[in-house]
Amino acid sequence: MEDLYNTPQQEMFIGVESKKAVSNFALNYKKTNIRLIYAVVNIKKAAAKTYLKLKVGNDGVYEAVIKACDSILAGRYQEQFVVDALSGGAGTSVNMNVNEVLAHLAETIWQEEKNKKITIHPLDDVNRGQSTNDVYPTALRIASIELLRELSQSCARLQQALQLKEREYEGIRKLGRTELMDAIPITLGEEFGAYAQAIARDRWRLYKVEERLRQVNLGGTAVGNSSNAERKYRFMVIEELRDITGMGLAAAEYPMDITQNNDVFVEVSGLLKALAVNLMKISGDLRLMNSGPFGGIGEIRLKALQAGSTIMPGKVNPVIPEMVTQVAMKVIANDSAITMAASRGEFELNAFLPLIADCLLESLSLLERAVSLFQEKCIELLEPDKDRCEALLEGSYAFATAYTRILGYDRVSEIIEQYKGDPAAIKNILEAEAGS
Amino acid sequence: MEDLYNTPQQEMFIGVESKKAVSNFALNYKKTNIRLIYAVVNIKKAAAKTYLKLKVGNDGVYEAVIKACDSILAGRYQEQFVVDALSGGAGTSVNMNVNEVLAHLAETIWQEEKNKKITIHPLDDVNRGQSTNDVYPTALRIASIELLRELSQSCARLQQALQLKEREYEGIRKLGRTELMDAIPITLGEEFGAYAQAIARDRWRLYKVEERLRQVNLGGTAVGNSSNAERKYRFMVIEELRDITGMGLAAAEYPMDITQNNDVFVEVSGLLKALAVNLMKISGDLRLMNSGPFGGIGEIRLKALQAGSTIMPGKVNPVIPEMVTQVAMKVIANDSAITMAASRGEFELNAFLPLIADCLLESLSLLERAVSLFQEKCIELLEPDKDRCEALLEGSYAFATAYTRILGYDRVSEIIEQYKGDPAAIKNILEAEAGS
Amino acid sequence: MEDLYNTPQQEMFIGVESKKAVSNFALNYKKTNIRLIYAVVNIKKAAAKTYLKLKVGNDGVYEAVIKACDSILAGRYQEQFVVDALSGGAGTSVNMNVNEVLAHLAETIWQEEKNKKITIHPLDDVNRGQSTNDVYPTALRIASIELLRELSQSCARLQQALQLKEREYEGIRKLGRTELMDAIPITLGEEFGAYAQAIARDRWRLYKVEERLRQVNLGGTAVGNSSNAERKYRFMVIEELRDITGMGLAAAEYPMDITQNNDVFVEVSGLLKALAVNLMKISGDLRLMNSGPFGGIGEIRLKALQAGSTIMPGKVNPVIPEMVTQVAMKVIANDSAITMAASRGEFELNAFLPLIADCLLESLSLLERAVSLFQEKCIELLEPDKDRCEALLEGSYAFATAYTRILGYDRVSEIIEQYKGDPAAIKNILEAEAGS
Amino acid sequence: MEDLYNTPQQEMFIGVESKKAVSNFALNYKKTNIRLIYAVVNIKKAAAKTYLKLKVGNDGVYEAVIKACDSILAGRYQEQFVVDALSGGAGTSVNMNVNEVLAHLAETIWQEEKNKKITIHPLDDVNRGQSTNDVYPTALRIASIELLRELSQSCARLQQALQLKEREYEGIRKLGRTELMDAIPITLGEEFGAYAQAIARDRWRLYKVEERLRQVNLGGTAVGNSSNAERKYRFMVIEELRDITGMGLAAAEYPMDITQNNDVFVEVSGLLKALAVNLMKISGDLRLMNSGPFGGIGEIRLKALQAGSTIMPGKVNPVIPEMVTQVAMKVIANDSAITMAASRGEFELNAFLPLIADCLLESLSLLERAVSLFQEKCIELLEPDKDRCEALLEGSYAFATAYTRILGYDRVSEIIEQYKGDPAAIKNILEAEAGS
Repeated sequence: MEDLYNTPQQEMFIGVESKKAVSNFALNYKKTNIRLIYAVVNIKKAAAKTYLKLKVGNDGVYEAVIKACDSILAGRYQEQFVVDALSGGAGTSVNMNVNEVLAHLAETIWQEEKNKKITIHPLDDVNRGQSTNDVYPTALRIASIELLRELSQSCARLQQALQLKEREYEGIRKLGRTELMDAIPITLGEEFGAYAQAIARDRWRLYKVEERLRQVNLGGTAVGNSSNAERKYRFMVIEELRDITGMGLAAAEYPMDITQNNDVFVEVSGLLKALAVNLMKISGDLRLMNSGPFGGIGEIRLKALQAGSTIMPGKVNPVIPEMVTQVAMKVIANDSAITMAASRGEFELNAFLPLIADCLLESLSLLERAVSLFQEKCIELLEPDKDRCEALLEGSYAFATAYTRILGYDRVSEIIEQYKGDPAAIKNILEAEAGS
Repeated sequence: MEDLYNTPQQEMFIGVESKKAVSNFALNYKKTNIRLIYAVVNIKKAAAKTYLKLKVGNDGVYEAVIKACDSILAGRYQEQFVVDALSGGAGTSVNMNVNEVLAHLAETIWQEEKNKKITIHPLDDVNRGQSTNDVYPTALRIASIELLRELSQSCARLQQALQLKEREYEGIRKLGRTELMDAIPITLGEEFGAYAQAIARDRWRLYKVEERLRQVNLGGTAVGNSSNAERKYRFMVIEELRDITGMGLAAAEYPMDITQNNDVFVEVSGLLKALAVNLMKISGDLRLMNSGPFGGIGEIRLKALQAGSTIMPGKVNPVIPEMVTQVAMKVIANDSAITMAASRGEFELNAFLPLIADCLLESLSLLERAVSLFQEKCIELLEPDKDRCEALLEGSYAFATAYTRILGYDRVSEIIEQYKGDPAAIKNILEAEAGS
Repeated sequence: MEDLYNTPQQEMFIGVESKKAVSNFALNYKKTNIRLIYAVVNIKKAAAKTYLKLKVGNDGVYEAVIKACDSILAGRYQEQFVVDALSGGAGTSVNMNVNEVLAHLAETIWQEEKNKKITIHPLDDVNRGQSTNDVYPTALRIASIELLRELSQSCARLQQALQLKEREYEGIRKLGRTELMDAIPITLGEEFGAYAQAIARDRWRLYKVEERLRQVNLGGTAVGNSSNAERKYRFMVIEELRDITGMGLAAAEYPMDITQNNDVFVEVSGLLKALAVNLMKISGDLRLMNSGPFGGIGEIRLKALQAGSTIMPGKVNPVIPEMVTQVAMKVIANDSAITMAASRGEFELNAFLPLIADCLLESLSLLERAVSLFQEKCIELLEPDKDRCEALLEGSYAFATAYTRILGYDRVSEIIEQYKGDPAAIKNILEAEAGS
Repeated sequence: MEDLYNTPQQEMFIGVESKKAVSNFALNYKKTNIRLIYAVVNIKKAAAKTYLKLKVGNDGVYEAVIKACDSILAGRYQEQFVVDALSGGAGTSVNMNVNEVLAHLAETIWQEEKNKKITIHPLDDVNRGQSTNDVYPTALRIASIELLRELSQSCARLQQALQLKEREYEGIRKLGRTELMDAIPITLGEEFGAYAQAIARDRWRLYKVEERLRQVNLGGTAVGNSSNAERKYRFMVIEELRDITGMGLAAAEYPMDITQNNDVFVEVSGLLKALAVNLMKISGDLRLMNSGPFGGIGEIRLKALQAGSTIMPGKVNPVIPEMVTQVAMKVIANDSAITMAASRGEFELNAFLPLIADCLLESLSLLERAVSLFQEKCIELLEPDKDRCEALLEGSYAFATAYTRILGYDRVSEIIEQYKGDPAAIKNILEAEAGS
């Protein structure tokens, strides 16, 4: 692990606390989500801009910090953020890592640009008026909103793709099935229409929940009562952050609540779980309709994207729905981790926020990718087998239900029982009895 | 099991399909939730009233059915509903059970009241224009809304009780803690204020989600395309049901979607999980603050409700927070069952809806009771130990953070390190250095 | 709730602590599992027999207690056990409830039989040398072993039923499927053989895990260090309990461990989850093979046990596999509750043991019933459709894989691609090229 | 994503199917676990060695493949394994990726070493007699055993560290607590002894479960009936693999079972969950005992490993137990994913095996790291505060329970109630009454 921050290619700007974090949390798991890092950097930038306007601190310090923020946000320096995603300390190491890198990078940039030395303190300067406990939860909200919006757009495209299929297949009659048993005639278009409705509901939820995430506790510092944060700073920093992010962020009315309670992330994750459930339902249906090619249902054909087997030539598997289903199960499992973590807050903070962050951002990213791939590589490319749809419908006695209104449930049941396996005969009798 | 429907005290009105269900689903688990049964009966009543207005069916049939519905809704005949909560068949046995009981009970009532015989068919009459697949999901929505409203009221009372404590204890200064470590001074009132905020958010969510449940697929019958349901009936039955329930129910625009997709129950359960998480957080804090009486934190005293031990005299346990925590964990587990079940819908239906119904209604009921008991037997009766709060605060160096703005983080750290364990000395030095 | 213990039909023997528990834990959920109650009573009996032998206590006290135990174990007095399954207090109320009922019932029986008065103290006598914290976990182990054995027997019968099908269908060739796609020829017998193997593995696990449950902390009292329990009593009571239960119980070597750590229940529940997973897999396959009757796979026919629909005549649903799947999902959800609860032990005890007990015993009972019903009403009654099995196999190109050894994967793939949809042609070409 | 396999630094040996997989599963999640890849490579090597002995295939082919295997196993070429961890296709892409890389790398090595051209087919040669469906599950077992052993060793070291503390602190008396309330005197050594016992049980379980993983389906090919695998190869390849891995692998008696059923992974994951639960319990206790330094329990002091706050100087957090707790919750969540995936097997295979593999191997690795760091950076470095332990014990009335044997529960309760808050007075009265 140690050589992580000693790679020869790249000067490392991290300081002693970051190094301790690397050593203490040597899980070899994965680094803290870069989206979260960037959100923290954006907060630092908003704070620096505020202090610049407030004319606080030594000459150049906040100017230099802003420059350092911009360099990082331009995508360089990702390797500087070395804290494992499951660090202890409620995010302190992540904040410390960003503070240290910004301080040292700002000093370096200033030296290079201005050719004069400046001293920047990671805490007294970069972290001024802040605490991990307001910075980290605010950053998590920003990163979540960002990813929620991307996911929402993917869902919109998926919904459109499904609606296109709805219209395209409105003339293809097929067997409706309940509990996997032949039921009642429907159309293939209706099938896709129902999927589109479910995804539309997901979009609506993802859109609505954003408002809950917009309430941030920045300015609340360590426990939410704004200890050590100046009044002017508190008001201005939110405005700066709103400008930088373009999100309608607002200071929470009761920051102590938001600092210690994480039910909002449980709520968001719960909605991701609802989307996951819908994706599993649709994926499962597609796999069933695609099953075969000879020994299954075979009402649709998913696009052959790759060889399906290393031993069975000609085999094609429904790999995209399988991947989507796995992502959905992962999202459901992440929700379980988020719920456990959120339930274990104690007093003024929840020590397990890094786990919440890691799982929530992972779920959002995974869903965004899975939904996009589902739309592009599965929904848009699939094709119906109209003849097979017709044949399965015609071979069944799905038509029989309609006769109960005339002949009664019991009589229709009798006829079906008597001519079991011979739909044509059933139809004749039903028509004869009903028509008379 | 068999004698369930042959108890001598009570004439059983169930028919052959109910009896088969008892035998097939002999899990000895528990009967289908009675709230769900009553919601089904309300739907049957709405249908009967519709057909009565439409003047459909034989004389007296729907009049008799309505009388039977009212008898059941008056609370008699609970023992007639014999289907296990985890029945297979997506609720068919539950619908069949209600249909059979209503048909036979209606015949009996008619005979007794009018002294003449009437024949009522469980399916052709009582179930007319309906399917389990629109009746059962609609009933689940009605029962859920009913319980949601009760839960919402309990939450409102809990929130008020917390806010009362917030005001009452606003003058009690205490130690704020993060990660269980001494942090920064707060008040006991603020502690309760943060809890009240979290519960307020839960109330808001429970209130808002009702609108999603109000969209019902009644009239959609077997797969949502309204096969076998007359047009006039479909419009009128929703109106009747709205009248009967007093809920703003509306016919879903795309009933096929709602018939097969159950993400809405995942959404509702997800919100219950968020409430559960908040209850666990608050319960945990109360248990920590109540810990002792000598060897713990001891900032509050929960009311002694019962002997705490069969072996240790004088011991009192925080039994209500412990119960609340267990209910919360049960709700989280139920959410997991609901999610799994909802993810396994296939084509036009989800065969596992009875599990969803059982878990969701159980979670709603359990939470309503737990929240009420929490408010009445714990929050309202607890008392602060003001002296202890003060003593723990004074003994700590929670005051030190405020000095970092003047002396810098590093210098304050040094002083604390040097005079570790002697807060008075730390305070003196800090004041001296800062004041100069 | 209050009238629970004031029912006129039945004299109630409960005392003040039981009444407080009813009021404090008024969740309307369900009463504590009766199997657990009986296990507690068995422990009380073992203690009473021990003290009788040790000639401790007043004349007749322990004799009377033993009589009371036997009365309860004969199945009377179930209504005396009034504590909700999710009570706070780590089981104290349950132990108290049993202590109180035994004391009062013993007094009453003595009075009736001997016509003289005796005074028995629920704690000093009935609970002598005991604590909830050793009684309750020991009782949970006894009840679990009892139910484990019943479940194990059900699994044995299911395994046998599956093996019977394995032999019976060994001549029925059918299509093997991977990822729902046509793969390679197998037999229907092999299908059932694989199921039998999985269930055999479950049986083995359930058998082996019993040994872990046999280590009990009885005699450890409040925290496991045997405070207040006499040395002689501690050795003898385990022996008595072993006699009474017929289980090879042994005193734990380090009772403090078992008093506070509940990983063993997580382990047992984890194995139940493995069984649940196998049941879901088999149930899912049966539902797929049974799908149809015309528009699905249709390789087997599950027995028609009840009408499948209230609207679609002739419809038959796979209700038993659906029920089994729901039970399995419930068991998985219970495991989640057990895990959460077990993870929240603190110091010398876990306050949430009642939730663990409720969920574990429920899972065991539900699985036992579900496995039995699965065997009796599904596996044993199902029938193959040999013609359909053959037809689906013949229509596919499952035979093609065998030719890759001669022709190579790429050439076989080409042929399949070229003659897609025409298995007969594919077979001809393959044979021609290979046979030459 | 696309440039992943076009990095200029490194020649890529992947072929068309690997490239398709990169494009199809572009989740940006993470690559397939390298341990799993190496296990697949070991299987390929065993197969190649077998064919070399059987003198099958063209000259040099299997010799070259073995050389390629060794190069990969030496740790080079990690970047060649490009398939996302959640790929669809039940692992086909992973197997294909390894087949392609081995074929092309073997050709290259041969060319370089022998200076002559050789042609190696990824499927007909490298994958000969194999299918993803026997290779992948076998590889997952090998990788799991490897990680299980490492984890087991970490647990052994943790157990030893705890036992050292047990002995070291056997003389430190402290308050035992149940439900966070003062209970009965114990020693700090006993506290650690109970932890050691729990971890010892975990070790035992991890040790015993290995035997279940040693049954492999290699040789079963696509569905477990050994289609396309020669008899001699099947027997020899297991022997070769046993030699290579040094694990006691054995051919499963009924490979079709193991090919389609994944309950064994659920079992293993369930045991990891039991370990996770124990780690959470111990971590939670340490955090409580370490709470303070002034306003908490303060019976131990965890080593200060890093600054605890960016705003509160002098604050030290229990970062290692917090990290361990997060890892444990992650493991529990992974178990949920594994369970869901395993429950969704269909017919001869489970399409979701990659999710099982990803979660199981992640859990094993994370636990190994967390257990090691827990031992090294937390348990071994913590220190007791003997005075504080004594003081909390002396201030309580934990001594009172012992008097119930003489004075009875009720009398002791009365005395405690009367002199509440004055342990010294309670002790005097109790002694006076008991001693007389």
